[in-house]
Amino acid sequence: MAHKYQFSVVMSCGGCSGAVDRSLKKLEGVEKYDISLETQTVKVETNDSLKYEDVLAQITKTGKKVTEGKEEVDGGLQERKV
Amino acid sequence: MAHKYQFSVVMSCGGCSGAVDRSLKKLEGVEKYDISLETQTVKVETNDSLKYEDVLAQITKTGKKVTEGKEEVDGGLQERKV
Repeated sequence: MAHKYQFSVVMSCGGCSGAVDRSLKKLEGVEKYDISLETQTVKVETNDSLKYEDVLAQITKTGKKVTEGKEEVDGGLQERKV
Repeated sequence: MAHKYQFSVVMSCGGCSGAVDRSLKKLEGVEKYDISLETQTVKVETNDSLKYEDVLAQITKTGKKVTEGKEEVDGGLQERKV
């Protein structure tokens, strides 16, 4: 079963969101993602094996501040640790 | 002997340079660094054991484009692979 994660990431310009884009592109197991500079949100869909912590770590490596993390569980969003 | 490296990094705003800052802060062996948004330059001084490739890899993890890398050798700047 796929996972759906959602992160609030501080991104101030297209260079910031582009950096998150390049970082997620390289992470194996990511199937789909959507980065919104406007809402400061990064939505990530992964395969079964990619964990929340792995995706969080990859985004954190960009040096961007992650202020919030959530996982979709049974159609609702569950707060996760950042 | 310390190493001095210099990278040209595409950074479009304070969020971009801040991301590089947070990334270098976490890299063990970095003794001093200077990030200039104006000149798009990242200068890094490291201890003896930290290699050029390690610093390049850490900056690359931020998702920022590194367009040029140099190392100070005998007072001059020597082009390195990026």
